[in-house]
Amino acid sequence: MSTTHPLTPFFAPTGVAVVGASARPESVGHALLRNLLFGASDGREVRSEGFAGPVYPVNRKGGELLGEPVVASIGEIDGPLDLVLIAIPGKYVPQVIDECAAVGVRHVIVISAGFAEIGEEGKALQDAMMARARAAGIRIIGPNCLGVIRGSSLNASFGAAAPPAGGIGLLSQSGALITGIISYAHGERFGLSAAVSLGAKADIDDEEIVDFLAGDPETKAIAVYAEAFTEPTKVYESLRNASRIKPVVAIKGGSSAAGAKAASSHTGALAGSSAAYQAAFAQAGVLQANTIGEFMAWSRALAVQPPAKGKRLAIVTNAGGPGVLSADAASRCGLTLATLAPETIAALNEVLPSVWSHNNPVDVIGDATAERYRDALNIIGAADEVDGIVVIMTVQAMTAPRETAQAIIDAHANPAWTKPLTASFIGLAGSEVGGLLDAAGVPEFNVPETAVSAMGALMERGAWLAAQETDVVAPSLPPMDTETIEAALAEARAGGQKNLDLALARKVLAATGLRYNGSGTAADAEEAIGVAEGIGYPVVIKLISPDVIHKSDVGGVVLNVAGPAEVREACAGIRERVEAAHPGARITGFTVEEQVSGTEIIIGMSRDPGFGPLMMVGMGGVFVEVYKDVAFRLVPLTHADALEMIGEIRAQALFDGARKRPVLNRDELAAAIVRIAELVQRYPEIAEVDLNPLVVTTDGLVAIDARVIL
Amino acid sequence: MSTTHPLTPFFAPTGVAVVGASARPESVGHALLRNLLFGASDGREVRSEGFAGPVYPVNRKGGELLGEPVVASIGEIDGPLDLVLIAIPGKYVPQVIDECAAVGVRHVIVISAGFAEIGEEGKALQDAMMARARAAGIRIIGPNCLGVIRGSSLNASFGAAAPPAGGIGLLSQSGALITGIISYAHGERFGLSAAVSLGAKADIDDEEIVDFLAGDPETKAIAVYAEAFTEPTKVYESLRNASRIKPVVAIKGGSSAAGAKAASSHTGALAGSSAAYQAAFAQAGVLQANTIGEFMAWSRALAVQPPAKGKRLAIVTNAGGPGVLSADAASRCGLTLATLAPETIAALNEVLPSVWSHNNPVDVIGDATAERYRDALNIIGAADEVDGIVVIMTVQAMTAPRETAQAIIDAHANPAWTKPLTASFIGLAGSEVGGLLDAAGVPEFNVPETAVSAMGALMERGAWLAAQETDVVAPSLPPMDTETIEAALAEARAGGQKNLDLALARKVLAATGLRYNGSGTAADAEEAIGVAEGIGYPVVIKLISPDVIHKSDVGGVVLNVAGPAEVREACAGIRERVEAAHPGARITGFTVEEQVSGTEIIIGMSRDPGFGPLMMVGMGGVFVEVYKDVAFRLVPLTHADALEMIGEIRAQALFDGARKRPVLNRDELAAAIVRIAELVQRYPEIAEVDLNPLVVTTDGLVAIDARVIL
Repeated sequence: MSTTHPLTPFFAPTGVAVVGASARPESVGHALLRNLLFGASDGREVRSEGFAGPVYPVNRKGGELLGEPVVASIGEIDGPLDLVLIAIPGKYVPQVIDECAAVGVRHVIVISAGFAEIGEEGKALQDAMMARARAAGIRIIGPNCLGVIRGSSLNASFGAAAPPAGGIGLLSQSGALITGIISYAHGERFGLSAAVSLGAKADIDDEEIVDFLAGDPETKAIAVYAEAFTEPTKVYESLRNASRIKPVVAIKGGSSAAGAKAASSHTGALAGSSAAYQAAFAQAGVLQANTIGEFMAWSRALAVQPPAKGKRLAIVTNAGGPGVLSADAASRCGLTLATLAPETIAALNEVLPSVWSHNNPVDVIGDATAERYRDALNIIGAADEVDGIVVIMTVQAMTAPRETAQAIIDAHANPAWTKPLTASFIGLAGSEVGGLLDAAGVPEFNVPETAVSAMGALMERGAWLAAQETDVVAPSLPPMDTETIEAALAEARAGGQKNLDLALARKVLAATGLRYNGSGTAADAEEAIGVAEGIGYPVVIKLISPDVIHKSDVGGVVLNVAGPAEVREACAGIRERVEAAHPGARITGFTVEEQVSGTEIIIGMSRDPGFGPLMMVGMGGVFVEVYKDVAFRLVPLTHADALEMIGEIRAQALFDGARKRPVLNRDELAAAIVRIAELVQRYPEIAEVDLNPLVVTTDGLVAIDARVIL
Repeated sequence: MSTTHPLTPFFAPTGVAVVGASARPESVGHALLRNLLFGASDGREVRSEGFAGPVYPVNRKGGELLGEPVVASIGEIDGPLDLVLIAIPGKYVPQVIDECAAVGVRHVIVISAGFAEIGEEGKALQDAMMARARAAGIRIIGPNCLGVIRGSSLNASFGAAAPPAGGIGLLSQSGALITGIISYAHGERFGLSAAVSLGAKADIDDEEIVDFLAGDPETKAIAVYAEAFTEPTKVYESLRNASRIKPVVAIKGGSSAAGAKAASSHTGALAGSSAAYQAAFAQAGVLQANTIGEFMAWSRALAVQPPAKGKRLAIVTNAGGPGVLSADAASRCGLTLATLAPETIAALNEVLPSVWSHNNPVDVIGDATAERYRDALNIIGAADEVDGIVVIMTVQAMTAPRETAQAIIDAHANPAWTKPLTASFIGLAGSEVGGLLDAAGVPEFNVPETAVSAMGALMERGAWLAAQETDVVAPSLPPMDTETIEAALAEARAGGQKNLDLALARKVLAATGLRYNGSGTAADAEEAIGVAEGIGYPVVIKLISPDVIHKSDVGGVVLNVAGPAEVREACAGIRERVEAAHPGARITGFTVEEQVSGTEIIIGMSRDPGFGPLMMVGMGGVFVEVYKDVAFRLVPLTHADALEMIGEIRAQALFDGARKRPVLNRDELAAAIVRIAELVQRYPEIAEVDLNPLVVTTDGLVAIDARVIL
């Protein structure tokens, strides 16, 4: 598949030229040439460790560099050539593009800086370069990038080293992160299939590399570091497609305010909203890591181990304390410890000393031999009640680390073995013994909690794959009352309302199918009493004013209004407080509403500048801001997506019947989310929707407030 | 100081005997002897790397072992001797204790198993051993333990290796965790001053080792792994004392339900309640880690770097992406990024290329030389607006890792340097370059988020030390009305009430000084109307029944009762629902209460079997269970402790005036916590107190409900 991909020459060229190859050891052009010829620029000069095809240094000075003849220009190259790296000052680049066009090269990596990032002049230069490239059908990676690395077969970058070859395809907005991860890969003995730094993305953008990696047979898992995508929805689509083919892990730089500020001074672009990125990753089936450690641990495990069929973990250990801490870590990752079946325990009794834990974690005891590990793993590996296994070893007096590693490798290599397996030989990740496990496809980590976290990723991946195969039947909904919606929107426009008053906002949202509490409007207190008598006490009285957005902040909402005298008091009080807080604000009347109490849910919609409409659902009321117990998804979304959002709410026990509260019909809430998503997709003039609260009652969801902003 | 400590011979003996020394390579007695003689049992036999004093193998067979003459019994030893290790079958141990007594040895490590953990017979053996030891004034570590390691000078354990010498004093309930950490210490090049595994703790217990390490000049930071302490309050006191002298880090195995179950099959003892341990650690000034990675990273940093004077972090990096991710990590750890002063930026402008970030993280750019790092660190190190520094490096084409490490070491060694510093040379933790930094006292980690987390520990430690020096003035409170309390408790006892009815519970708590909402009791609906008219509508009506604990779960609470008709309806409804849910439950009347609404806070007290009374404060209402936004402390507690608890509540914005809500007077809440702590300390018959909710009003705290259980 990848051999026919249009980007293939960037990863598997027939021949590579380096324009700007230099003899100066501290220059980028010199590092590039060394990396191409020898795989690394650490001083070793073993040509067989470099790119297997021809490498052409290009420099007007001619002569010879590192044993290769130097040509003065691309036109003089005689031999296969389909990739050109450029590392000369920016102003000469457009001309080299022309030379590439002339000889039929269609793939160029521009390492040079000095383009759009430096201002107007650079922008003009970039435009000129791109105009020529487009005319000639040339694709460009860069400018201002680290380059491209293909496993251990092509190091077309100016990093100091190439990674070991392996299954992780890395796309990073930060070239320096790639160099860091390469050191990390050497230290912990894992490998990369590719590493791509796109720099300023004048042409080729993230979505194309994701597509390439998705189709690349050498890439078993895709790992993406992003601060901000140029075209977020395109990248989202590519990630969605990719994750259906293979696992994808992402880490978003700038997920905190401090990080976003740092990212913005780093790339010059604003880091995207972290809620939108989180939504996009979740919806695309991408696992989002928080730290470089997680990012690499998850990618390593996903690249070599199968996804788990469930979340029931077994821990096999010769160390009690680390077993306990791993059980704690599993709990934090949302995994459960498998309850061992009696027949599993009976089988273990046959091979383990009598003092073994008789429980999971399976403590094979400090004096465990390699054979004991092998026997225990064979039994646990065959146990139906276990979905994944973490094996832990510490070096105690009788421990034979190498033989134990081999025993684990043997058990894992058994053709009957099907479950995912990760390991921690505590403190030995950088050692030869740790490397044995990695080489055999069992990812081995320095501390057991990382092995558990990596298993968590395999279990999440399995759960996501299973969910894709589960049919979710969406309830069929009556059509939206678009006539009413359009009339209400027209009325708002005609009245110059950007922030719709409550009556209009209710009209719009009720027309999507939402049920509202009993309510009416009144011009004054006497009218309000009439409305309240119709609804029944107690009622809630709320200000109507086109000038006040947060009504409750100015004392514009009174709850528990229990009788006529209290209605009068409430109206007078609101009037007084609003006049004090917003002198001159128009008070056009009062809303009188049936007081409904119960678990409060919020549905919200805002528009992200990159991803477009962003739906939110969570626990409503005053707690929404302090606990931020909300979930986000992009629009369009499916009923299954909406159910998944609801499933992310931490306090869901509260609407699942805890404390005898009414139970939420999740399908009803999901349908409401989907409906509002349809509304905002159909009417792009709606900038913001805020339904807070929606109350869970025994008769279903009842909407109370509404905010619609055009 | 440590030379005069009574436990000193365990760590610095004059001579050591090994009873049960053996020629069989796979035996514990052989490993012990090798470790004593050569420092490790990995096969190398370099006597100068072992214990410097005499080592006496003891075995009835006599002869020679590993070059040392074997004696048949302790009595035959001729030479200095004050520590005996025993590794023979349990039944022979008491006799060896007698032999020790005879020659005046007072310090014994019993490695052997087969004591209380195996049942009655073993228990009797353990009692016999301890009786003889006590009679002779002999102190015992063990039985069933790994042993004791003193830096690189004494390996009196059967682990496979000794750690490098360093500043971390490790006390671990798990011997296997010690062996894991020793491997980890070798891999990441840090060191231990001591490692102690106490095994079954027949005699010497955690608090004594903590005391020893607190006074030990070689120990710069204490690290404790615990599943359950034998005498929690004693260990708490020792930790409290120790943390005043030097930093202490703890990790609790079994903090999750799954982990607690694992711990219980591991040690046979129930793991202590994780809330109580968390409270004890916080109150003792101990930093509690969640993972082995944090445990070691924090201990390493605290052992070699000074605490920070504030939480303003500066990041110096040659890698943009890792800088951004570190800023995100800092935000997760509760650190702020320092805002660089104009003069700091001006100074950096002089030494950095023009494209540097002009901001914190200080991006010194991918081509940074060692000199550039040194210059930047000299400036940041002198900047008043910075409290701590994390320095990050990735190996890029022009990077000189060794020179950069040296530049950092130089900056750090400058006598003017005062701030804490941690580093991440990404992926190089196990390498020689990483080791250079560690050797110079700059803890270096594989991934930058760990360097940030370690800096977080230095900042937490600094904040805790500063808090100890801050005088907190507790408001003076009127004395408790002990007469009323005692009368109420007597009434409860007389009435056989274990769960006090609301009126009695209110009486007890009001007598501590808490203010209650207007309230009265009524035998029936007609009486309730009278009470309600006196209080003013709306009111809350609640069931009074000695048989129902969770009133609201059975529909025993009706809110918003707005008039006489509604009072009748509410009383009838409660009667009906309670009869349905609890047929036969006694309904002795109704409470009628002023309805008070506002931010709801909970104060609770329960008794932990190990630590005694445990105070809780947090966000009340229905959210207490789902968000568990609560903090715990042990009793007795100070006003400052109570304020600290309040400061741990995540949703505190809600009582700090967010959304125009009434602002909490923290002193008033803290005083209430201290008061209830005094109450339960004075009246141990009170088993549980639950004040949910306490409402924050503009007039102060108003208590509404109350649960007191004897």
